[in-house]
Amino acid sequence: MKSCGIIVEYNPFHNGHLYHAKMARKMSGAEVVIAVMSGNFLQRGEPAIIDKWTRAKEALNHGVDLVVELPFAYAVQSADYFAAGGIKLLQALQCDALCFGTDNQIEMDYELFGDFVNKNQTEIDQAYQQIKNNGMSYPQQMTEVFRKLYPNSGLDFSSPNHILGLSYAKENAAYEKPMRLYPLKREQAGYHDTNIYQEFASATAIRKAVFSEQLDQIKQVLPAQVVIDLANSATVSWEDYWPLLKYKLISSSITELKGIYQMKEGIEYRLQEAAKTSDSFQTFMEQAKTKRYTWTRLQRLATYILNNVKQQEIEKSWNQSHLQVLGFTEQGQRFLREEKKNLALPLITKMAKSLNSQLALDIRSNQLYQLGNHRVTEQSFGRFPIRLS
Amino acid sequence: MKSCGIIVEYNPFHNGHLYHAKMARKMSGAEVVIAVMSGNFLQRGEPAIIDKWTRAKEALNHGVDLVVELPFAYAVQSADYFAAGGIKLLQALQCDALCFGTDNQIEMDYELFGDFVNKNQTEIDQAYQQIKNNGMSYPQQMTEVFRKLYPNSGLDFSSPNHILGLSYAKENAAYEKPMRLYPLKREQAGYHDTNIYQEFASATAIRKAVFSEQLDQIKQVLPAQVVIDLANSATVSWEDYWPLLKYKLISSSITELKGIYQMKEGIEYRLQEAAKTSDSFQTFMEQAKTKRYTWTRLQRLATYILNNVKQQEIEKSWNQSHLQVLGFTEQGQRFLREEKKNLALPLITKMAKSLNSQLALDIRSNQLYQLGNHRVTEQSFGRFPIRLS
Repeated sequence: MKSCGIIVEYNPFHNGHLYHAKMARKMSGAEVVIAVMSGNFLQRGEPAIIDKWTRAKEALNHGVDLVVELPFAYAVQSADYFAAGGIKLLQALQCDALCFGTDNQIEMDYELFGDFVNKNQTEIDQAYQQIKNNGMSYPQQMTEVFRKLYPNSGLDFSSPNHILGLSYAKENAAYEKPMRLYPLKREQAGYHDTNIYQEFASATAIRKAVFSEQLDQIKQVLPAQVVIDLANSATVSWEDYWPLLKYKLISSSITELKGIYQMKEGIEYRLQEAAKTSDSFQTFMEQAKTKRYTWTRLQRLATYILNNVKQQEIEKSWNQSHLQVLGFTEQGQRFLREEKKNLALPLITKMAKSLNSQLALDIRSNQLYQLGNHRVTEQSFGRFPIRLS
Repeated sequence: MKSCGIIVEYNPFHNGHLYHAKMARKMSGAEVVIAVMSGNFLQRGEPAIIDKWTRAKEALNHGVDLVVELPFAYAVQSADYFAAGGIKLLQALQCDALCFGTDNQIEMDYELFGDFVNKNQTEIDQAYQQIKNNGMSYPQQMTEVFRKLYPNSGLDFSSPNHILGLSYAKENAAYEKPMRLYPLKREQAGYHDTNIYQEFASATAIRKAVFSEQLDQIKQVLPAQVVIDLANSATVSWEDYWPLLKYKLISSSITELKGIYQMKEGIEYRLQEAAKTSDSFQTFMEQAKTKRYTWTRLQRLATYILNNVKQQEIEKSWNQSHLQVLGFTEQGQRFLREEKKNLALPLITKMAKSLNSQLALDIRSNQLYQLGNHRVTEQSFGRFPIRLS
């Protein structure tokens, strides 16, 4: 069964995502569309506005056939690791194609680029090592590196979506059977209001409208079911977890904070001080921010702190990957049945207590996600994939 | 200047405490009454209903001349350590006498008892070692030990106040210049409603009335100022810290929980499980309770967990004791001036950043206390002793 993967967050699911799922099917000619979706904590270090099961259900209702969860250790990461996780899971599912959004203004051959990166990794690493302490941001440095090594490509590492696309291409090219790549340009949206397709920006606008209880203003960019979910389901934002993060930062010793994944360069002192004098997550972030730490990097660090994440847990999760199914349509279920014996990673359709150790980080982060709103239901045990018929 | 000490918690201050302070002065003939008072976390492992500065002010307005804080490492402890801390501070202040409440029904000579315990500690320890695993509670075991070694004393270790009195006597007798002891029997209250003088019981009733917003029912047992404070100041209970305790228990690894002071015998597994399924501190305690762990012991453990307390911090605090002054009347200030050169421990009247390391546990517990109610003001830095003129 021909399959096309998409790597998504759906925070929340909106018409741009609906278009993406439809175009993935159309461009690739796939019979089944597979979404690898972040769980309850997201790439930019945020709690998902709505829990993963609800988001999976919405996806299945709007063009996706199978939703598999991207584990915390891959989901809450910079583009490189996020992409590596997404590609790893799609490859394990024997996926034939990958469709991803891009806002690159010029045409580029992502497959060719992926090949290039894989064949020239040593040179790229060397070029990066030479400039890595030059004070530029990581995106600027990457743009610099490729300007020299891969000229006339017009590569622009300042766009998050474009960086992701390049990361997908690179990771994918390293596999024996790379997936066909289908970049989806925003302008292909054509007649639609472009705001809807500026995924990060519009998702931000949508969340803002939700939290200021102005759902009416955004309902034209959301499927009707999502509007209902956002109105009736438990929604959360970082502010809901702020009391816990503040407590964690104040109650922990500096040595304990140093033990958190990605805590580097003495930032623990700065974060602890900022926590003491801040009354909201927003204020905390503004106080803690430095030139060296982008908002996203800091927010991701905050997510690691909140979830008490350690380096060895991340590595353990990377080494013991799995395919946790959040839901499927009949077509998605048919696909799983056919591919069952070819899957390169263990399939999980029910969280059993025996998985406690292997999935410790994912289970814990889900339990902590629940603390943001008492209406968030149990996320792991006793849950079965959503089945859409 | 002749001085009499009292060791108190004031949770909250009520007419029984007023009577205690007055009788301390009268019975001992002291010119100055010194209260060693628990800070924001109390002996039975609870947050104080109202912060230490407010409680100190109330004390100064009702018969106390000087309030010194009992550090966390002594305050949140079983009777033995609590008493050791209180006596240590009063001895360091060169106090002449100690007045304490007792509900012992028969006359006993506490000074004689203190001497006996100090001279026969080896025999007492041996007798205790012989029965310590017999399944009885600690109070029962102590009653058993003394029934043999100190017959006809009518000692009853089942009363918290009596246990404290005996602990004071024992600790005091170990000093070169023991204080004169003035036990204050409850029946001496005479014409007053005895409920007012059942300190623990009535304080519980008062707190209950405060939290159910029925201050009217209890205002006859409280000084008018305390009624006003309870109505207007920030009050807290364990339930206010429950989300933080729950978060701490769920987010910590078993190894991390094992590192908490007094975490023993695998109780960390039980506490973590109870946290996951509890929606209130009350439910949590009921679920976690076992025969082996009394409510108070468990509550004290919960306080150590909330405050992320380690064995070495407790020991450090014991070895670096100090006298932190929370407030004084003119008479109290005169006393301090006169005794300044005789004090056996360093006097702290202003929390300086240089004390950060030495007082780490106290500073941290005060910061965490603030998280229970955003109206609780800064407890350490920039605070000066309350001066009543």
